[in-house]
Amino acid sequence: MPDYPSSAADRLFTIGLDYGSLSCRGILTDVRSGAILAEETFVYPHGVMDASLPDGTPLLPGWHLQHPSDYLDALQAVIPALVKKSGVSPGQIVGIGTDATASTVIPVDENMQPLCLNPDFAPHPHAWPKMWKHHAACSQAEKLTAISREQRRPYLDRYGGAVSSECLISKVIETFECDRTVYDAAYAFMELADWIPSQLAGAPIFSTALASAKAFYDIKSGYPDGDFFAAVHPDLEHLPEDKLIGRFPHHVLTHPCNHAGGLSRHMAEALGLCAGTVVTPGHMDAYTPMAALGIDKPGVMMMIMGTSTGIMLLGDEGRPVSGVTASLPDTFFPGLWGYASGQASVGDGLQWFADHCVPGKYERAAESEGLTVQQYLTKLAQRLSPGETGLICLDWINGNKSCLGNPRLSGMFLGLNLQTTPEQIYRAMVEGTAFGARMIAEAYRAAGVAVNEIRACGGIAGKNPLMMQIYADVMGMPISVSRCTQVPALGAAIYAAAAAGEKTGYPSIFAAMEAMAEREFTVYMPDERRHAAYETLYREYRTLHDYFGCGENRVMERLYAQRTQGGILNHQKY
Amino acid sequence: MPDYPSSAADRLFTIGLDYGSLSCRGILTDVRSGAILAEETFVYPHGVMDASLPDGTPLLPGWHLQHPSDYLDALQAVIPALVKKSGVSPGQIVGIGTDATASTVIPVDENMQPLCLNPDFAPHPHAWPKMWKHHAACSQAEKLTAISREQRRPYLDRYGGAVSSECLISKVIETFECDRTVYDAAYAFMELADWIPSQLAGAPIFSTALASAKAFYDIKSGYPDGDFFAAVHPDLEHLPEDKLIGRFPHHVLTHPCNHAGGLSRHMAEALGLCAGTVVTPGHMDAYTPMAALGIDKPGVMMMIMGTSTGIMLLGDEGRPVSGVTASLPDTFFPGLWGYASGQASVGDGLQWFADHCVPGKYERAAESEGLTVQQYLTKLAQRLSPGETGLICLDWINGNKSCLGNPRLSGMFLGLNLQTTPEQIYRAMVEGTAFGARMIAEAYRAAGVAVNEIRACGGIAGKNPLMMQIYADVMGMPISVSRCTQVPALGAAIYAAAAAGEKTGYPSIFAAMEAMAEREFTVYMPDERRHAAYETLYREYRTLHDYFGCGENRVMERLYAQRTQGGILNHQKY
Repeated sequence: MPDYPSSAADRLFTIGLDYGSLSCRGILTDVRSGAILAEETFVYPHGVMDASLPDGTPLLPGWHLQHPSDYLDALQAVIPALVKKSGVSPGQIVGIGTDATASTVIPVDENMQPLCLNPDFAPHPHAWPKMWKHHAACSQAEKLTAISREQRRPYLDRYGGAVSSECLISKVIETFECDRTVYDAAYAFMELADWIPSQLAGAPIFSTALASAKAFYDIKSGYPDGDFFAAVHPDLEHLPEDKLIGRFPHHVLTHPCNHAGGLSRHMAEALGLCAGTVVTPGHMDAYTPMAALGIDKPGVMMMIMGTSTGIMLLGDEGRPVSGVTASLPDTFFPGLWGYASGQASVGDGLQWFADHCVPGKYERAAESEGLTVQQYLTKLAQRLSPGETGLICLDWINGNKSCLGNPRLSGMFLGLNLQTTPEQIYRAMVEGTAFGARMIAEAYRAAGVAVNEIRACGGIAGKNPLMMQIYADVMGMPISVSRCTQVPALGAAIYAAAAAGEKTGYPSIFAAMEAMAEREFTVYMPDERRHAAYETLYREYRTLHDYFGCGENRVMERLYAQRTQGGILNHQKY
Repeated sequence: MPDYPSSAADRLFTIGLDYGSLSCRGILTDVRSGAILAEETFVYPHGVMDASLPDGTPLLPGWHLQHPSDYLDALQAVIPALVKKSGVSPGQIVGIGTDATASTVIPVDENMQPLCLNPDFAPHPHAWPKMWKHHAACSQAEKLTAISREQRRPYLDRYGGAVSSECLISKVIETFECDRTVYDAAYAFMELADWIPSQLAGAPIFSTALASAKAFYDIKSGYPDGDFFAAVHPDLEHLPEDKLIGRFPHHVLTHPCNHAGGLSRHMAEALGLCAGTVVTPGHMDAYTPMAALGIDKPGVMMMIMGTSTGIMLLGDEGRPVSGVTASLPDTFFPGLWGYASGQASVGDGLQWFADHCVPGKYERAAESEGLTVQQYLTKLAQRLSPGETGLICLDWINGNKSCLGNPRLSGMFLGLNLQTTPEQIYRAMVEGTAFGARMIAEAYRAAGVAVNEIRACGGIAGKNPLMMQIYADVMGMPISVSRCTQVPALGAAIYAAAAAGEKTGYPSIFAAMEAMAEREFTVYMPDERRHAAYETLYREYRTLHDYFGCGENRVMERLYAQRTQGGILNHQKY
């Protein structure tokens, strides 16, 4: 290992773990430079359970569960591998930072063991971890929104005006309403992102960032009072104390950049690390990239682009932004406001198109050139210029997250004709996602939140230059794309280096970022002519966005209702 | 031939020839029963010339030409084959009826020879026959519409309020404006449907139905006066006498149900028929099916469904129907008004989808089951029920003919989501064409033209039971589908039997229809529950139809302009 000679023996390192939807990715980084010495990925053997439980119990449409043994097996698989691959000694590893999808919600017993591992509860779907994209708590979210509006709860503005069906409270109430046995048996409901560090420390560790982003927690005043939860149901009046953080009398609740606990002796032995190694509270996987990309001030829009896209910003002050899912203090870094928003479908909409809408001759041509279908479509699409397709797409293939907050919206292709080709539709879909990102940037600006610079990361940003060029042209701004392929895990490792400040010497998360954050960016410059051309198409997109998204024609919501009820005939109970 | 023993020697027969876009189809029928004794198809060797002339001269986008030698070769290939296959003697063949696509326009010399066969003019694209779907005369059509409106010309209402770029006059003026050499050299411009019988008779024979449907001719007052043509250009003041029917001093101009001439000695020898055999004026290929399906009274809507769909009706009186391409007296049958309308894309939109939007695994599954891709999609789509797809399609893949008369409109898929399958889109496209047909039926009703019954024919009607069932469910009416596969040619043969009334004994076209028209229909009954469900979706379709088609959002026309100019950058001349 020429880059890390034996003199590295006096260096210090942190581990970052990123619990995604399908795998856990871990890295080991040098706390002085941020250099990644080793990386390891563990793909969850049970993946996403959306059809049935392990015992065969079928699941309803919209359900997405996971198996908690995958989370623990990931620790066992990843951490020892990082130590072995890097060759560093356990004593040099001073901290472990983690992030996870959110809200992924686990009902646990008094020992923080998942309820679903108890044979009595294994056949209960509600006893299993509900993933962030488990979309069966819509009616609960609507009820919470209505009560919050009626009671003029201040967090509603900070959640973009509506409670999401993805958030922890929606999912807990779904269990309360649909399987009281599980609800009553659960000692508490934990976010996966809290549960992982709690397992590492052997004690309950909670993140203020998660509680405020996903559970109505206010860092000054705490949870809403009992009037709020009682309005949902009288039995829920004391929900925070009965089933959430308050259930654990000796919990730690702090920010992910702080030391929250030490690695337990049991875990240290199992993982080959030193007991007492600093453990940080968990963070959200769309939030840690802000640290990894070194964004420490307002005005820099961060896009993490994968199956969906997270769009994040910092601010000096809190401004409500309509349709932005979180405008909250301190969620990224202490002393700064954090804005979180996103697009529900980017990479997965393009993959849906590649899988379902591209003819065999394209598949064969791609294969003969050693390309994926998306790469082949990209190659053909890059020969086209703005407006040449004659198409406009609404990119709502999986609903609209920001700024409409409506999962019942759907995708649209407009401008089809007998000469339309798959690569034209593909390019128009890419343009549609770029217009969608532009709408979000404009919403921030309209609310007085500056967007002066854009940095991007994630699988798509690194792999699809055409897409990034189109985004730069549509935005009319340069876009700097990180070359790092482990951005969320690097962010988690930076939080750990800050939390282990006693050993690393970093007085703050900002100091750790200064030293460790990504410095290598590929910059896509906007072309002025193409930007001017895209202004024309963006205006068309915005008109259609408003017509279908803002209530003038609610046809998409009506079609959604018909489809999810199996057609109009089933609905009308003929 | 057990069905036609030698006692058939005293029977009489007519020939019907149908000149379509890609082939000429001919039949020989018994004038007593309409039974088809023989059929023959001749595929044009030159097909549709849309990329270049035979000498390699390239053609612009939108150009669609044909080679006139294909038309004459078709006569030689089809007629002797019909005589041979049927075994009847030439003396028993008493008439020849023909139909063709319209307006397909041929510049000819004084001997009615196509100008393009003269080597001096062969390199001139405008010297070649321009097909009905040659779409390069849009600006001329718009100019004619504007002048007609300004001069309050009465035919404008009868053409649905606009002159089509497909009509003869638009194409002649395109030649006048774009290639004056060809215009000046042309002795006259003839419709293909007039040219064929003129070749058979060796003398100019014109159809009143064609002249009134495609060239502003009024059966009472003739062509518009010189003020009209002079307004286009002073040199065009005497267009009808200079370049149209009036150019031939000894022409015949009459209705296709009349005897217009006798087969010339030259042609009789070449084709193996008797000289003097009755020749009728030509008719339009979308019109003769009315006779073949035995529709002799108002209230019966006739749909001829292929790549596009023609929708025809009879009326006791003339009522202007907005957006209907022709509301004219006597075009089908003397004494009745004829209404003509249509959908620009039905079968070809579905074929475009099957060719460009269906993945390899579907293609392979179809092949392994011995099905075409469309048949395989149909098989899967028939398991779905109304609303189950969550999709609505606007069926304007090739523009909208009726009732919007706008070739710049385009197709739309709305409601797409990550679970959307190809068969769902296919079904929604079929439903979209059914809604489009329903819009036309409603436009007739709104104008006071009754639609009490529906009969259908054409390739799709005979081959796709799912589609016909969806049409019946959407319309809420039974649809009777002809089992005959040679409907236009049968219609032409019926016209010939009427024209040869002296020998066949038929006093009128109605008497010939009574004896010879199709009697075998497959009836699709509407399902009341599905009809009620489709009312919901039809309302959504209508709202979208009006929003995009009636001026509220002209995005489709703007996208069309950008696309046909090669993109916004080319257009803006950066």
